[in-house]
Amino acid sequence: MDDEFSFIRSIVPRETYQERLTHGIGDDAAVYTGQDAWDEVVCVDAMVEGVHFRKDTLSPFQIGRKALAINVSDLAAMGAVPQFYLVSIAIPPNWSAEELTSLYEGMRAVGDRYGMDLIGGDTVSIKDSLVLSVTAIGRVKKGCALFRNQAQPGDVVFVTGPVGGSAAGLELLDQRGRFGAFTEQERRYVHMHQEPVPQVEMGKMLAEQPYRVALNDISDGLASESMEIAEASGVQLVLDQQKVLELSPQMDSVLPEKRVKWSLNGGEDFQLVGTMTDSAFSSCCEAAQQQGRHLYKIGFVRAGEPAVLLASETGEQALQMSGYNHFKRR
Amino acid sequence: MDDEFSFIRSIVPRETYQERLTHGIGDDAAVYTGQDAWDEVVCVDAMVEGVHFRKDTLSPFQIGRKALAINVSDLAAMGAVPQFYLVSIAIPPNWSAEELTSLYEGMRAVGDRYGMDLIGGDTVSIKDSLVLSVTAIGRVKKGCALFRNQAQPGDVVFVTGPVGGSAAGLELLDQRGRFGAFTEQERRYVHMHQEPVPQVEMGKMLAEQPYRVALNDISDGLASESMEIAEASGVQLVLDQQKVLELSPQMDSVLPEKRVKWSLNGGEDFQLVGTMTDSAFSSCCEAAQQQGRHLYKIGFVRAGEPAVLLASETGEQALQMSGYNHFKRR
Repeated sequence: MDDEFSFIRSIVPRETYQERLTHGIGDDAAVYTGQDAWDEVVCVDAMVEGVHFRKDTLSPFQIGRKALAINVSDLAAMGAVPQFYLVSIAIPPNWSAEELTSLYEGMRAVGDRYGMDLIGGDTVSIKDSLVLSVTAIGRVKKGCALFRNQAQPGDVVFVTGPVGGSAAGLELLDQRGRFGAFTEQERRYVHMHQEPVPQVEMGKMLAEQPYRVALNDISDGLASESMEIAEASGVQLVLDQQKVLELSPQMDSVLPEKRVKWSLNGGEDFQLVGTMTDSAFSSCCEAAQQQGRHLYKIGFVRAGEPAVLLASETGEQALQMSGYNHFKRR
Repeated sequence: MDDEFSFIRSIVPRETYQERLTHGIGDDAAVYTGQDAWDEVVCVDAMVEGVHFRKDTLSPFQIGRKALAINVSDLAAMGAVPQFYLVSIAIPPNWSAEELTSLYEGMRAVGDRYGMDLIGGDTVSIKDSLVLSVTAIGRVKKGCALFRNQAQPGDVVFVTGPVGGSAAGLELLDQRGRFGAFTEQERRYVHMHQEPVPQVEMGKMLAEQPYRVALNDISDGLASESMEIAEASGVQLVLDQQKVLELSPQMDSVLPEKRVKWSLNGGEDFQLVGTMTDSAFSSCCEAAQQQGRHLYKIGFVRAGEPAVLLASETGEQALQMSGYNHFKRR
């Protein structure tokens, strides 16, 4: 990258969305007003070239898009609405200004979708791999944030949509690269990997209901995210294998075992998994339908040593957390 | 690093400082209450191994310490009091668990000093260089944040303490490494580079005074930070070379020209530079003295095309921004 001046000018937003932002980019730090009626919600996620993405599976635009979407999904899992983001980026010499501009446009596309303002960042150089670390800030009505530790025996386990599509897409991309030939069906899953959609509206709806809800986003696979709920709540989650299969990638040529594995261990679907009582689930299904969305029941919660089990006709099987990334915690 | 479990357990705080923190580490995001009476202030800074630090000039503890101190200094320059931080870290294979624990202890030392809680982060792997990106969050009384764009002709230019010591220390470390032999005088500057102290109390005091104050922290050298004030305010800052020399590293063996250069172009002193009226300056000097601290007048502001000039007996010289890091903006 040669012309830092025009690059930095190009990433500074010309307009902002959030009224409570009093000072964005341009000083030592950003400033926005606090509000008694709201809780602040903040998270950070890092993506490393060669570890979390490669230029041959994601375009620069899609890399930027995903870096912000990961964080938006974390906010959604708290029931929070995203408002601001900050971008810390370490740029190696082999990234061009055009690619970087495209990467920031990817973030801006997500920001524009949710009314988020870019309010700060740090742009530094690095020798080898690009590192993109995004901090996202949102808010939720005071006391309404949703946590993982709220599951109770008897609860329904639900998800907000299909899971495993991103993993299926990644496998296709690993085989053929992002410029490879895909069938229409395959293209759908490639797209799910490249441009997953965080469930902000569903998180917000669940936070605004008067019910006890445990909630987590599916960034590391259904199995490990369910396990986080089980551990935080001190319960067991029993998932129905047939229901999981129904929500797994519908690829005719792929064995059911593999499809279930994608759902359980694949990551980055950005759907939400949670638990609540049966009657709360019925009410929330209606509220979701009013948004043209759906909640899918995939299992139940019971007392016991924290575990996630997969139930089928042949019995129950405790899930090994092979998709569980021990190296990553928020 | 082999045992991620015990490492992650070791970095999760057992106690927290901030009452308004309702949920720290352990869910998808952290949650803290908003407050009508306060503005939120947030910033992020990244440090890359081999670019911003090396293991032979800073210990892992000092690297962690500095990574958080950089951000605390940015908050101080807004007049904000730090409260929370999040750590995004990309770890290469050649960093041991002991070194990483030490790095987090360095951050914790700064956090403990200012009552900041570690409330989130992301820990990922990378092939080559360690990348440490820290987000810091603080607060300032509503409407009291201090900005760069408030300088006016006739103002005094001031700093909160000696500048250039960190650059002098870095040069010594570059020559001899951190286990090298140093005189007592040299050791003082090595220490200034390794463990610079952000000026939180001074920033807070300046924000609480009823005066118009322009403020910036000196992370990239006095010249470039003064230039940021000049550009943001549309004024010229004229610095007195003799005053700058008096605040520069007092190393007998070094020529005055070099000492001034350290002050103007060296970075990471974490002192503050600002401007205010002469009468406001007198009042703030008294307030500083009540804290056992000092403000140092080093120049004045005048109308004109944005510039920073160095004034000596032989006349004025417009400063070239050789210490100005165009690749970095907040």
